[in-house]
Amino acid sequence: MNREALFEQIQRKQSFLCVGLDADPAKMPAHLNGDVLAFNKAIIDATRDLCVAYKPNTAFYEALGLDGMRILKETIDYIGDEHFTIVDAKRGDIGNTSRYYASFAFNTLGADSITVAPYMGSDSVKPFLEYDGKWTILLALTSNKGSQDFQHASQDGEQPLYAKVMTRAAEWGTADQLMFVCGATQAEKFAELRALTPDYFFLVPGIGAQGGDLEGVCKFGMNDHCGLLVNSSRGILYAGDGEDFADKSRAAAQDLQTKMASALKKYLP
Amino acid sequence: MNREALFEQIQRKQSFLCVGLDADPAKMPAHLNGDVLAFNKAIIDATRDLCVAYKPNTAFYEALGLDGMRILKETIDYIGDEHFTIVDAKRGDIGNTSRYYASFAFNTLGADSITVAPYMGSDSVKPFLEYDGKWTILLALTSNKGSQDFQHASQDGEQPLYAKVMTRAAEWGTADQLMFVCGATQAEKFAELRALTPDYFFLVPGIGAQGGDLEGVCKFGMNDHCGLLVNSSRGILYAGDGEDFADKSRAAAQDLQTKMASALKKYLP
Repeated sequence: MNREALFEQIQRKQSFLCVGLDADPAKMPAHLNGDVLAFNKAIIDATRDLCVAYKPNTAFYEALGLDGMRILKETIDYIGDEHFTIVDAKRGDIGNTSRYYASFAFNTLGADSITVAPYMGSDSVKPFLEYDGKWTILLALTSNKGSQDFQHASQDGEQPLYAKVMTRAAEWGTADQLMFVCGATQAEKFAELRALTPDYFFLVPGIGAQGGDLEGVCKFGMNDHCGLLVNSSRGILYAGDGEDFADKSRAAAQDLQTKMASALKKYLP
Repeated sequence: MNREALFEQIQRKQSFLCVGLDADPAKMPAHLNGDVLAFNKAIIDATRDLCVAYKPNTAFYEALGLDGMRILKETIDYIGDEHFTIVDAKRGDIGNTSRYYASFAFNTLGADSITVAPYMGSDSVKPFLEYDGKWTILLALTSNKGSQDFQHASQDGEQPLYAKVMTRAAEWGTADQLMFVCGATQAEKFAELRALTPDYFFLVPGIGAQGGDLEGVCKFGMNDHCGLLVNSSRGILYAGDGEDFADKSRAAAQDLQTKMASALKKYLP
C-alpha cells in the first residue's frame, strides 16, 4: 500500500487508528478457550471500518508456541488488502541476515511493513528498504521508561540519539518507504520530531494503556498526509470480557475514531 | 548452564568455539535436498567435542517458513544439555512484551540464552534477566559496517554508546547472567571492552567470514574464566559441499580449536 492510498483511506474513514493485535490468551474472554485466531477475527470484524491499520506484535505469537507464526499468518490473511498491516517485530541484524527477516515479514507473512531496531546501523536497515511497495518502520523515540537510558543522550554533542536515527535514516529511505516509531508520552516532543522529518509517517504507540495525549500528538505531529498512525492495543482488545466483547471493542475503537475525525478537521493542513 | 560449568567445559575441551547454526538451504550440499535439520544434525555430530556452544540465528529459521521454529526447536533438542545454546534473535520490546520473547527462547525452545538489542533501554532488557539459570547476551559493539552509525558516537560527551550500554547493563545483571556481543574487527578494542566489564563473557562474532583476528581478541579480551565465546558460522558450515561436507566442517572447527588451545595456554591468566 503506497502513501497516497494510505492517506486516501484515512480521509475516507476519518481515522488514523491502528489496532494492535496483541492477543494474550490469559486476558481473552473465557468462552473463547484461548482461541487466538477466533479472537483476532472477531476484533477485526468489529473494527474494520474504524481503523486503517492492524499491528500484530510477533512476541505474542511466539508465546503461543511453535504454531504461533501460523496463527499470525492466518490473522494477516484474514485482514486482507484494504488495511495497512504492520508486523511489529523490532528486528535488525547484519545485512545478509536482515534480508531473511525482511523476506519472512513481506513474503511469508505478506505484511505491508515491519518494525526495525536501529542499533546496528545502516546495513542492518537497508535490506528491509529494498522491497518495492513495502515499508520499514524504524524505532526512533519509544514511549517506555527505558527510552531514557540511551535514546535521549546526545550523540557526539549534537543531536540526541533518537534524532540522529531519524535524520540518518531519512538519507536511507524516502517517506514513501520508511516510517518512524515515535512515542507519545510527551506530546510537545512531536513538534521537534515533525520538524526533523516533515513528510514521514509516525507510528505512535502509547495511546491508551501506556498513557499519552491524542490531541497533543495531532496538534504537534500531523502533516499534510496526516502522517500519523496511532496505535491502541489493550484499550480496544480487552474493553470487555463477556460474550459481547467484540461490541465493547468496537465501542472503544469508535471512541478513538470520533476523536480522530475531530482532530483531522482541526489539524489537517 | 552456569559460568563455572561453562568455564569447566572450556578447559576440558581446550576450546571456546561457538558454532553458528545459520543453515541456508541454497548453500547446503545438494544431496541433502534442503533438509536443514539433517544438515544441522550432521554439523553438530561432527563438531560436538570441538566446541562449547551452538548459536542458531532465528532469521535463518524464519526463512524456512511457518515450520521454521519447529526445526529450530528440534535442532536445540538435538544439541542436548552439554553445550551452551544461544538463540541469536536480537529481540527487545517494552517490558510486558519482552517477557514473551524470553519465554519463547527459554521455555518453548529450551535455550540457555538469547541475544537482545539495547535500544529501548532497561525495562526492555530486564525481563530476560528474570529467568534463573538463563542468560541474556546484549548487543554492545557489533562488527558490521553500520556499527559506525550510532554505536561509536559519544553519549552526552562521555562514553561512546557501546561503552555506555555495557556499563549501564552491568548494573542490571551480573556476570553470571549477562554477556555482551562484542565484534572482532579491531582486536585492540578488546582491551577497552575488557576494562569496562572485567568479569563478563563476550560473544564474539566476526571470526572467519567477517574477518577478525583470533589471536588479538584473546590477547586483549581473555579473563580468568576465558570470558570469550568466539563464533564461526559460514567458515564451518560451508567448508565443503560434497558428501563429505561434515568431515570438512570438522576440519575447519578442528583448526579453530587448535588455535584456541594455543591461545588458552598463552593468555589464560
